[in-house]
Amino acid sequence: MSPLPEFDVLTITCPSRASLARITNKWTAMVVTALGEKRLRFTELRTAVTGISNKVLTVTLRDLVRDGLVARHVYEEKPPRVEYELTELGRTLLDPLEALWRWADEHTGKVLAAREVYDARG
Amino acid sequence: MSPLPEFDVLTITCPSRASLARITNKWTAMVVTALGEKRLRFTELRTAVTGISNKVLTVTLRDLVRDGLVARHVYEEKPPRVEYELTELGRTLLDPLEALWRWADEHTGKVLAAREVYDARG
Repeated sequence: MSPLPEFDVLTITCPSRASLARITNKWTAMVVTALGEKRLRFTELRTAVTGISNKVLTVTLRDLVRDGLVARHVYEEKPPRVEYELTELGRTLLDPLEALWRWADEHTGKVLAAREVYDARG
Repeated sequence: MSPLPEFDVLTITCPSRASLARITNKWTAMVVTALGEKRLRFTELRTAVTGISNKVLTVTLRDLVRDGLVARHVYEEKPPRVEYELTELGRTLLDPLEALWRWADEHTGKVLAAREVYDARG
C-alpha cells in the first residue's frame, strides 16, 4: 500500500503531527486503552496501567483532558470522587490503538528474536 | 468494542509492551512510514522526516535494525553507499501506523480546538 498520498504527516509544519506526537506515546496509548472499557478513578487507572507513576499519570491525564480526549467528572461527595472517561473524540482512538496492540501481540516474538541475534553479534 | 480481551497489554510484565513502547514513538512511526514508500539513504530520510536530528535518526535507525524492522544495506562503492529498507516484519507495521496517521489527519482539528478551549479557561 502506498502510504498516505493525500497528506504529509512527515513534515514538521503539518498540524496532524502535533496530535500524532501525543498519541504515539506509550503511556497515552495505555491510558486510553484502559479507559476504553469503562470510566475509572485515578487509583483504578494506576492499577490498570502497571508501572505508571503518579506523576506521569497526572500529566498524561491532564494532556488528554486538554486535548478533548478524556473527560474529568467530579462528584461532590465526601470524600470527593473524580472519574475519568473517554469522550466521543477519545473513543475514536480505540480502533487505531487496537490495531497497534494487535500488531505488538502478533509480532513481539519476532522482534525479541531479532534483538537477540543483533546483540549476539556484539 | 471491548478492548483486547485475549492479552493484557497494560501489564508491565507483558512482553508485547516492550515492542509497543518502541513503535509508539513518534520518530519511529515517522521513519517507518517514510521507508514505506522505498528504501532511502540516511540523508534522504533526514529530508523526508522534517525536524529529526542526526542523533535521533541514528538512534532510531539502530533500534529499528536491532528489532528486525529495518535492514541496512551497505554498498561497497566510492564513496560507500548505505541504504535503509523495511524488512518484511517492518512492513507489517505500515497498516497499523496508517490507521494512526488517518486518525490524526481526521481529528487533529478537534484536538486543537479542545486545547484552545482548555487553555482559554486558564
